[in-house]
Amino acid sequence: MEDMFLFIIEVIGTIAFAISGIRLAAYKNFDLFGAYTVGLVTAIGGGTLRDLLLDIPVFWMQTWWYLAVTGLSLLVVILFRRVLVSHNKMLFVFDTIGLALFVVIGIQKTLAVGYGMWVAIIMGMITGAFGGVLRDILINEEPLFFRKDIYATACIAGGIAYWLVGFVSHDPIIEQIACAVTVIALRTLALRYNWSLPVIRYD
Amino acid sequence: MEDMFLFIIEVIGTIAFAISGIRLAAYKNFDLFGAYTVGLVTAIGGGTLRDLLLDIPVFWMQTWWYLAVTGLSLLVVILFRRVLVSHNKMLFVFDTIGLALFVVIGIQKTLAVGYGMWVAIIMGMITGAFGGVLRDILINEEPLFFRKDIYATACIAGGIAYWLVGFVSHDPIIEQIACAVTVIALRTLALRYNWSLPVIRYD
Amino acid sequence: MEDMFLFIIEVIGTIAFAISGIRLAAYKNFDLFGAYTVGLVTAIGGGTLRDLLLDIPVFWMQTWWYLAVTGLSLLVVILFRRVLVSHNKMLFVFDTIGLALFVVIGIQKTLAVGYGMWVAIIMGMITGAFGGVLRDILINEEPLFFRKDIYATACIAGGIAYWLVGFVSHDPIIEQIACAVTVIALRTLALRYNWSLPVIRYD
Repeated sequence: MEDMFLFIIEVIGTIAFAISGIRLAAYKNFDLFGAYTVGLVTAIGGGTLRDLLLDIPVFWMQTWWYLAVTGLSLLVVILFRRVLVSHNKMLFVFDTIGLALFVVIGIQKTLAVGYGMWVAIIMGMITGAFGGVLRDILINEEPLFFRKDIYATACIAGGIAYWLVGFVSHDPIIEQIACAVTVIALRTLALRYNWSLPVIRYD
Repeated sequence: MEDMFLFIIEVIGTIAFAISGIRLAAYKNFDLFGAYTVGLVTAIGGGTLRDLLLDIPVFWMQTWWYLAVTGLSLLVVILFRRVLVSHNKMLFVFDTIGLALFVVIGIQKTLAVGYGMWVAIIMGMITGAFGGVLRDILINEEPLFFRKDIYATACIAGGIAYWLVGFVSHDPIIEQIACAVTVIALRTLALRYNWSLPVIRYD
Repeated sequence: MEDMFLFIIEVIGTIAFAISGIRLAAYKNFDLFGAYTVGLVTAIGGGTLRDLLLDIPVFWMQTWWYLAVTGLSLLVVILFRRVLVSHNKMLFVFDTIGLALFVVIGIQKTLAVGYGMWVAIIMGMITGAFGGVLRDILINEEPLFFRKDIYATACIAGGIAYWLVGFVSHDPIIEQIACAVTVIALRTLALRYNWSLPVIRYD
């Protein structure tokens, strides 16, 4: 039951990430194959770097459904582009839920390999945020990552929440929920109140 | 005898890929070392990502001849640039043969590790097409990959041909030839008849 | 005593590399988190690629001090930016010492895995120069690497010095010093006398 729930959330997250990549590719008039590739890289890029750094089997090579779900996302963008344009808020919700789950998954996998919490926090951030960096590199844009800071910062904050809750409770479910809620809350509040980190200047 | 034949083809493919990278570097007036590096990355980048994803020893670190052949390619570009400019067709032939063999090698290596055919098809495409993506990222151009779609699509089609022939024959030689011929035919026809995949739009 | 000395030099090198990344990020008005990330990637990017290619545990995931030292570098840039602007020469000295040590470390680690000297020379170069390439890709600039050639060439020359001295002496300390001195000397002389490799042209 709980596994099924996590699976559905992960599918939603993957679709949301893939759609965000495919939309950017569409703005640049990529062909279908290019759009699919950008969507795929956005959705699986972070987890791939995490698995390479942890030296564990790369997750999307173990089951074909990540590729299939990205294909579905491409179909969604083609068929419903007009609906998507007017539902940016819905996409943001999906994207944020996906981000939160990706962070949780990155932390879990890293702890399972035996690394300490500080490595897990970084891997959670990489899982959540690196796909978008790769997407921006592929389409030759300056990574948004470095401007929309709260994105990656929210991942780090979620990881710290996971760690702090671990001092009080050792129930992984509670740690995961604390992490996910922190990511979602911080990102939502940052958007609403236009939060951003201070900019560094150099004369 | 057959190994010798494959070896010669692989040398030709590596040289063709290296030359394509070095030519682009030369257009941008890179120095000799930069041109060498771009040529090397174009030739070995795809296989390197494949080996990292498969978690097997990186192929070009096992023998020095890939580096040597790239050096030879640099020499060829320096000495014969005028000849090369007027022989674009010859370069296209070499490049396409190299691409076909790179796809075959990528598929073979992936199957040898024990992954299924769908992973092998993707690894064939990565082996063939990712070096060019890396080259474009290094010289800070938008990857041609996303515009000249038939390139990567031909790799995928070759992989599917390999897979389909496997239902009829289990002779790896026949599967390989089917794969290579598909890649070469599709890419040649795409150039001649100006084929391309539909572009995705987003208003 | 010697370990302590190497440790101090490595800290200086990491700080110098991180500062070079953070300064570039500051020129582009990145926020604090983006600047930290660019600094980190500059400092650890080369070693990370080396460890992935060698298939050994990634060095910065084994101890938190690389992350801490990068945080210190961020603080230094924020607090002392005016001093830094007028002390470019000091930064160059740190950066060059760091580069030399990174090359030595890359060579040592590669030989320890059992690869031959030619792989070690390339890994020394990757350890020293690839962080800067990654930095330039992240901030979407054409890698300086391909213009300021003597940088990577000095790494290669240092590796060759290491190898040549090995024919005369088998004392690793002497090989390391020969390597480091070559890198430092070549880079310093190249700056002073404005050395550069010939540019490749293509009409």
